[in-house]
Amino acid sequence: MSRAPIAVLAIGGDALFRPGDAGTHRDQVRGARRAARAVATLVREGYRVVAVHGSRPQLGRELVRNEESSTKLPPQPLDVCVAATQGALGYLVATESRNELRRLRIDRPVTSLLTWTLVGLDDPAFQHPTLPVGPTLPTWRAKALMRPGEAHYTEHAGQGWRRVVSSPEPIEILNLDAVEALLDRGHVVLASGGGGIPVAVDARGQLIGVEAVVDTDRAASLLAQHLGAELLCFLTGVDQLYASFGRTDQRAIERVSSTELRALNEAGHVPADGVGIKVEAALEFVEDGGLRAVVTSPSRLAAALADRAGTRVMRVVEDGHVRRQLNLFPLPGNGELAEEEL
Amino acid sequence: MSRAPIAVLAIGGDALFRPGDAGTHRDQVRGARRAARAVATLVREGYRVVAVHGSRPQLGRELVRNEESSTKLPPQPLDVCVAATQGALGYLVATESRNELRRLRIDRPVTSLLTWTLVGLDDPAFQHPTLPVGPTLPTWRAKALMRPGEAHYTEHAGQGWRRVVSSPEPIEILNLDAVEALLDRGHVVLASGGGGIPVAVDARGQLIGVEAVVDTDRAASLLAQHLGAELLCFLTGVDQLYASFGRTDQRAIERVSSTELRALNEAGHVPADGVGIKVEAALEFVEDGGLRAVVTSPSRLAAALADRAGTRVMRVVEDGHVRRQLNLFPLPGNGELAEEEL
Repeated sequence: MSRAPIAVLAIGGDALFRPGDAGTHRDQVRGARRAARAVATLVREGYRVVAVHGSRPQLGRELVRNEESSTKLPPQPLDVCVAATQGALGYLVATESRNELRRLRIDRPVTSLLTWTLVGLDDPAFQHPTLPVGPTLPTWRAKALMRPGEAHYTEHAGQGWRRVVSSPEPIEILNLDAVEALLDRGHVVLASGGGGIPVAVDARGQLIGVEAVVDTDRAASLLAQHLGAELLCFLTGVDQLYASFGRTDQRAIERVSSTELRALNEAGHVPADGVGIKVEAALEFVEDGGLRAVVTSPSRLAAALADRAGTRVMRVVEDGHVRRQLNLFPLPGNGELAEEEL
Repeated sequence: MSRAPIAVLAIGGDALFRPGDAGTHRDQVRGARRAARAVATLVREGYRVVAVHGSRPQLGRELVRNEESSTKLPPQPLDVCVAATQGALGYLVATESRNELRRLRIDRPVTSLLTWTLVGLDDPAFQHPTLPVGPTLPTWRAKALMRPGEAHYTEHAGQGWRRVVSSPEPIEILNLDAVEALLDRGHVVLASGGGGIPVAVDARGQLIGVEAVVDTDRAASLLAQHLGAELLCFLTGVDQLYASFGRTDQRAIERVSSTELRALNEAGHVPADGVGIKVEAALEFVEDGGLRAVVTSPSRLAAALADRAGTRVMRVVEDGHVRRQLNLFPLPGNGELAEEEL
């Protein structure tokens, strides 16, 4: 078991939670169960599984709690808030994954690891914070919280002000060796939750927390690359991606080679938002040597793994053949892919 | 290295934080550095180290944040709050431990693990919740929050009401195998923070979170027993324990056999509060086969390890000899203990 291929599963907040969710504990547990079923699907397919959960809604609520208690308690910096949400959601997803595997009579421990993501202090993202987080505030409050060189707030037309933070590029997953140790021991591992706790190395070589949020999909792709994973799945709110979305020439992206998807992307057929990040993260993984990246919804995951649903980004080598990479394990349900021409 | 003896270090909140601390981020980091220096001391003594941090002040603040945001957000149950504090403080202590080891040019990864502690739903503690947590509330607010069969609040003379929760006995550390996997790989491991996330097994065999707080010292002792640790250290606010504290016959407990300490305890010379829990946890560890348990302050840790400070509870066998147990590794600085008569 312990040498089976590795799959990294990135579970976006929009796959876990419904638009109407109020963030009650019951909503959280229900979301964790959705994640758990996806984890179990990959375990049943024979993979060693690393799951990376998004936590944007939880982080938002953590920041609301900070704001609401601001006359009683000192605020917590963003890195500590990310760590707290990693703890809370990592706990719920691991518990439900354990329960789901047990229900399926699969004896596999599930372990949730606090994970640091190294970013560069010179990352250009720090010059241009763009990611809105936390509560919407009235002007007077946002102005009171803004300080030169510290927190940035921007006004959202007619709605009020929100803090914007930087989303720097992940450089390194600092706990990679721990993930590998646990995978080797047969554990399902939860790591890099919420993109990982953002840290940097200062001039003296010390690790310091930074006020930033790393994109979960980017962190998952980097983790998959560094683990030499075979499969990278992005679970999201839609069944597959679309090229030219919302235009007359809109079409679903189903099975596609990384070369084709790279061309679509460079021709401007993929939006630059969260979808664009997924496409870029998928391409980086496959171009780095991954066998395939899948983007789909939780309900279509099993079909996507069987090559019947979702967006599947396949690796091709120069001669146009899809190549199996890294190990010779049969890819469940996809044995024919190895030699198939695209 | 990986077969060196194991030391479990329980770091109490009163060892990490000063009475005047306001809970600012700077206070938290300073506390984490105190913990890191203790971790490094044990690493330098040649141990494989597992550190268990207390988090009562952080949990209290988490509950204040819940209360203050209660008109905006649904409350989080206690198990989720413990998980969040495990995340936040586990992050800070691991980061500072890594920095401290690096400063000492010791190349050792530090990994923080989310840890579940199994408790029994039939634990008598659930009938009598006694542990006060969270903010002090006025009567009207406490009454509004109390519901039959749910949260309990008690009045503290003249000060207001506080929630009281159960502190059940830890039965099992659910992530023991992960701790061992990481120790085997040479990591310093942070586990069972805040006593571990309290969970129980329901009638269907599923893991469920419970509204409780497990005592950190008890969890650390259980972890040390199940890991077969050689040494268990409790870091606290005092340099050593006292028998008959505050009475005319008060005396410091320095080097003591478990038999002597058990007798002192049963004769009622040890208070039943946090000190009593430490004494009981130390005795259980040593009686289970541990070589020694140490209770001291961060500043006296190195001296206590050299048998020159702190309370040292030593294992004795029937013939009155202190016996080395579990492995034949030399105990640094204490080679003479093996044969010394008590």
